[in-house]
Amino acid sequence: MSFPADSVGLVTPQKFLFEQPLALECGRVLPRFEMMVETYGTLNADHSNAILICHALSGHHHAAGYHHADDKKAGWWDACIGPGKAIDTSKFFVVAINNIGGCHGSTGPTSPNPENDNLPYGPDFPLVTVRDWVKTQAMLSDQLGIDTWYAVIGGSLGGMQALQWSVDFPDRLQKCVIIASAPKLSAQNIAFNEVARQSILSDPDFHQGRYLENDSYPKRGLILARMVGHITYLSEEAMKQKFGRDLKSGNFMYGFDVEFQVESYLRYQGEQFSRNFDANTYLIMTKALDYFDPSREYNLSLNQAMAQTKCQFMLVSFTTDWRFTPERSQEIVDALITNHKPVSYLDIDAEQGHDSFLFPIPLYVKSLRAFLGGEKLLQSTVTEQV
Amino acid sequence: MSFPADSVGLVTPQKFLFEQPLALECGRVLPRFEMMVETYGTLNADHSNAILICHALSGHHHAAGYHHADDKKAGWWDACIGPGKAIDTSKFFVVAINNIGGCHGSTGPTSPNPENDNLPYGPDFPLVTVRDWVKTQAMLSDQLGIDTWYAVIGGSLGGMQALQWSVDFPDRLQKCVIIASAPKLSAQNIAFNEVARQSILSDPDFHQGRYLENDSYPKRGLILARMVGHITYLSEEAMKQKFGRDLKSGNFMYGFDVEFQVESYLRYQGEQFSRNFDANTYLIMTKALDYFDPSREYNLSLNQAMAQTKCQFMLVSFTTDWRFTPERSQEIVDALITNHKPVSYLDIDAEQGHDSFLFPIPLYVKSLRAFLGGEKLLQSTVTEQV
Repeated sequence: MSFPADSVGLVTPQKFLFEQPLALECGRVLPRFEMMVETYGTLNADHSNAILICHALSGHHHAAGYHHADDKKAGWWDACIGPGKAIDTSKFFVVAINNIGGCHGSTGPTSPNPENDNLPYGPDFPLVTVRDWVKTQAMLSDQLGIDTWYAVIGGSLGGMQALQWSVDFPDRLQKCVIIASAPKLSAQNIAFNEVARQSILSDPDFHQGRYLENDSYPKRGLILARMVGHITYLSEEAMKQKFGRDLKSGNFMYGFDVEFQVESYLRYQGEQFSRNFDANTYLIMTKALDYFDPSREYNLSLNQAMAQTKCQFMLVSFTTDWRFTPERSQEIVDALITNHKPVSYLDIDAEQGHDSFLFPIPLYVKSLRAFLGGEKLLQSTVTEQV
Repeated sequence: MSFPADSVGLVTPQKFLFEQPLALECGRVLPRFEMMVETYGTLNADHSNAILICHALSGHHHAAGYHHADDKKAGWWDACIGPGKAIDTSKFFVVAINNIGGCHGSTGPTSPNPENDNLPYGPDFPLVTVRDWVKTQAMLSDQLGIDTWYAVIGGSLGGMQALQWSVDFPDRLQKCVIIASAPKLSAQNIAFNEVARQSILSDPDFHQGRYLENDSYPKRGLILARMVGHITYLSEEAMKQKFGRDLKSGNFMYGFDVEFQVESYLRYQGEQFSRNFDANTYLIMTKALDYFDPSREYNLSLNQAMAQTKCQFMLVSFTTDWRFTPERSQEIVDALITNHKPVSYLDIDAEQGHDSFLFPIPLYVKSLRAFLGGEKLLQSTVTEQV
């Protein structure tokens, strides 16, 4: 079996150990932790070509390439990472991580809790924040010998980590790419997260988070949480084009089995997701989203927060993204411009809603490549101030 | 205790019996049914001053006034119905109903099923449609001796009934008021309904809809269904102004108890709703929404459907309604204009989202009064074609 020429090919995740205690924002301390990491490309001699990829709610360290010769699906951002792609692994050393609290190998709720007979942490895993993640990512940078990232890049919740990097470690990154993100969640964003959480928390199979010990799993809750989340990732227009009011059987059935194609799709997505994701991790991720607000350490002023930064910024939003609208990216751009910071901003005309950030939309991919290549962005609609 | 001067005061619901079998769109037949009705004002000698109020998903026959001397809350549309109000009960005879399939006294899933030892219908209650409701409302009109309604009025799902009246019984209404509605649901609308349904259907206390017989109740599912629904009734802006990111205690708690005010509000709304609403009715209502499409009998052409109509129309939408956007009202307006039908259309600048139709927004209320009074609408922004 051969992989496409512009693929990073077969990749093997590595586990990094951190034996020092980690003090978290919530006041608790993790005695030790592990992080799952994938790297693509080669670190150059002066360690100046490293790019960190931060993942979104359901993402992880497997951002590109394949784990097995017969893998049908590549990593989640394979569209942009590879030799010759926008994040060019023939030039850059790309590092993708799974954040702690996750469920893909890094220390999280399914990991053994050394303070409780190595039973799974479950609900005893602390609520981690975007700041906590960025702190662990900086510890990883130290282990990798990377003083300064050439770029830190992320979409959605990943974009929030990139933003937090620029504020908390201004000397440790040259470029920051914040895609389809927001400086903090709106009341409506929090409301959707709360429905997702309540779906899980109210599932009788949740057992106060101790489902693993109880040989149980809140599958129904996780399906519902994903269904409601999924609606907010797609634009109304994308749903219309993809499903419209098409019926699965062609006729009304007058029952509660799947009738419309969109129902079938949502149920399938929820079902698939519930097989591969931990419910406690879902809770942690939504809370990290809700808590995110880099202005909290700066008198609730985003302007003051962005005044700390020293890197070049690229902001990208998508016209049909109603979860984090272009206006939310503009808030960050405005705070940067107020501080005379170098920022390029692209509002990309795309129909896929919030999910657009995962698609290889030509103008978006070209611009990302240009920004990372140090070129001036070509598009006249770009807000450029360097 | 005295009521406000512009209130209809104390009202008593009446039950109307229909002993003839009712053939439904789904192919099933209800052997008999009852409808709960409230009336306000007095029917004039030639029966020409009657107005029918159709309710939305969670509405019912109690649209105005009070049931008890110590009632704190008036009917759901008391803001617009009363002596001197927009729907002026000193001029009009106003009829408000609870639709069949509902849970406020009309025959529905909680009613005894004569074909099953008078046990509650539960999941055996047939899925009724907007067309079925309009048919029962026409039967009620016959009992009331109302040949022609002066007006049929409804918001949201109620607006769909008003629209269906104009198509199915063109000679039986003079005016039709369709507020915050749509000619059919979008894929996104259906998706949100599906999440609500799955919340209920997957609740272990649902017992395939036979919770009453099992002395059980899918409270958790109903709470979730209402929470997700409620988010779609409010605009992002209204949520921002009402709650923003305000914290209940002022600090992050790093747990899953209520932290943000918006969470508190949603949980409270869900909890309240779950006490007063039947889960099977919720399922029926969302299905009626999904199925609604008056063009189905007219080659899927809304233009052909609207060609049937003979009444005057008033369409109202609200700028921040993202459940049924102004564009959805415009689709109906366009089909009417194509057919050279008399239609006035107002897009009201309002911040309350879909819920705006329940608020006494001055321009909206004034225009409704003017339309019912036969006056020309005053606002220059009105699309008028008479």
